[in-house]
Amino acid sequence: MVRIAVDAMGGDFAPQAVVRGAESACREKIVDQIVLTGNEELIKPLIKEPKGIEIVHTPVAVEMHEAPSSALRKKRDSSMNRGFELLKSGSVQAVVTAGNSGAALAFAIFTLGRIGMVDRPAIATLHPNIARGVTVLLDAGGNVDCKPAHLIQFAIMGDAFMRSVFSIKSPRIGLLSNGEEETKGNELTREAHDLMKTVDLNYIGYVEGTDLYNGRADVVVCDGFVGNVALKIAEGIAESLLIFLKESMEKSIMKRVGYFFMKDAFQELEKKVDYSEYGGAPLLGIDGVCIICHGKSNERAIKNAIRLAHNFVDKNLNDSIKETMISYFKS
Amino acid sequence: MVRIAVDAMGGDFAPQAVVRGAESACREKIVDQIVLTGNEELIKPLIKEPKGIEIVHTPVAVEMHEAPSSALRKKRDSSMNRGFELLKSGSVQAVVTAGNSGAALAFAIFTLGRIGMVDRPAIATLHPNIARGVTVLLDAGGNVDCKPAHLIQFAIMGDAFMRSVFSIKSPRIGLLSNGEEETKGNELTREAHDLMKTVDLNYIGYVEGTDLYNGRADVVVCDGFVGNVALKIAEGIAESLLIFLKESMEKSIMKRVGYFFMKDAFQELEKKVDYSEYGGAPLLGIDGVCIICHGKSNERAIKNAIRLAHNFVDKNLNDSIKETMISYFKS
Repeated sequence: MVRIAVDAMGGDFAPQAVVRGAESACREKIVDQIVLTGNEELIKPLIKEPKGIEIVHTPVAVEMHEAPSSALRKKRDSSMNRGFELLKSGSVQAVVTAGNSGAALAFAIFTLGRIGMVDRPAIATLHPNIARGVTVLLDAGGNVDCKPAHLIQFAIMGDAFMRSVFSIKSPRIGLLSNGEEETKGNELTREAHDLMKTVDLNYIGYVEGTDLYNGRADVVVCDGFVGNVALKIAEGIAESLLIFLKESMEKSIMKRVGYFFMKDAFQELEKKVDYSEYGGAPLLGIDGVCIICHGKSNERAIKNAIRLAHNFVDKNLNDSIKETMISYFKS
Repeated sequence: MVRIAVDAMGGDFAPQAVVRGAESACREKIVDQIVLTGNEELIKPLIKEPKGIEIVHTPVAVEMHEAPSSALRKKRDSSMNRGFELLKSGSVQAVVTAGNSGAALAFAIFTLGRIGMVDRPAIATLHPNIARGVTVLLDAGGNVDCKPAHLIQFAIMGDAFMRSVFSIKSPRIGLLSNGEEETKGNELTREAHDLMKTVDLNYIGYVEGTDLYNGRADVVVCDGFVGNVALKIAEGIAESLLIFLKESMEKSIMKRVGYFFMKDAFQELEKKVDYSEYGGAPLLGIDGVCIICHGKSNERAIKNAIRLAHNFVDKNLNDSIKETMISYFKS
């Protein structure tokens, strides 16, 4: 039986969207049991289908814009950290939160601890590519100032992740840079580039932003500042392209007719762009399964994040990462 | 009479695409005269309409992937640098190149020099936003490792640019970061953020990638590494969205019918995404008008870059930037 803790107070649309997502996950038998952590007075009235849902009352909540260091000092009894405590004690097998991602990273490290030999756990986001595969990007925002050695650790975790979850035998690892040539890169990437060649990875060298979508790499590595900026650029352009397209359609009846015939294609496209399709991003390098969702997560995103968490528990993701990490660092 | 030097040997499709673009610009009377710098033996046979086009024979060319420092040492007699020399001597009023952008920046600084008080000239890219305006991003790739003071200079140049070219009275300046809150940012942006508040600019604080497209900011400032990665992410997602959409259309006749009615809308969309629409990116902070084009520039991109250069010459862009910079640094 898989039990997953879900932070009912995390996210811009919490607790409503979180409760709805948890209910959907139970209804669709994605998971056996869900433990909602949060303020019972707020959560209980929202629950329409209590089957499979349990509440652990935790009145304190981490604010979306609170500094992680402050949350870590003052909010150990928060709904967010309670989830990690339940995971630590073995009462649940995974945690899902759409709350403050910096705080989630901080609490995960504090409460669960890191997998041995990992200095900096990282947020890994999944991107469908046009080669019909998936490319994972890490770090997507956990660690803004990185040293070269941290990027190497991200590469190793990404490698382990693609091996265990997507059964890719020799994941192609690229280092995100401003060009493919050796002469490109900044101080950080140049040092990391040299180091990367010394590790037993299928390192393909520098990759560019376009390679996140064309299937050239399975794993794209960067520091969390660059990764986060990149993701938000992608979100921004995808949204504005759809707006441009819809605006130009509204200008003519012919285009509206055309749209009618193409509706499915647009819906498919919006799914591709929609972060809620994958639900969330795994936190790699901590000792336990944790999925971090977009702050704007809706019911569907929460449900899919619960599905992703369940999938990682099934595949013993964390044990695989641990083993891979140990084997790399030993060699 | 406006004369513009165009580097005939720069770009992935040079010299063909460059010669075609120069011919179009002359045919459409976008410019009075064009000086093509490059290997006459290669260029001359390509010219079908010689009216308004002059060749300055320069057999040496900078390679697309050559290190800028090496080009600067060994290729002062290149087609690229010859353009800057012509500009310096007053024989032309602007330079357009689709060649190695790092080398272009290096030669521009070496041959033309910087506008007083600018440490690091920057590449500024123009982005149409959904508020029907334009947002300028800088630095888009010139300077990979920046200090906080450099970001302030980029902000001031962006401000001057939006005032003189787009007549925006008080351009809203944002600093690209991984979130809007004060607690976000990395070491570089946090220091720059504090400094930015001390300068007399309409500084709106941290902005995110999405703000490059939603019209919230007129000027978005970042270091050249982050800027370049961001641009290539945007390119990648735009291209792959169009591929996804076309693929899903090919699956059904109904969607093909729909596409037929919507063709204009798609063409409009492709224009929006297409870098060749603006043609190129001005290099700000050097003492002369220079437009750097995408390496993949086609005929249309070159033509539009020539138009952009002409426009900047007309508006005395460089004098405006000089004046604005001086007034900021004096205050």
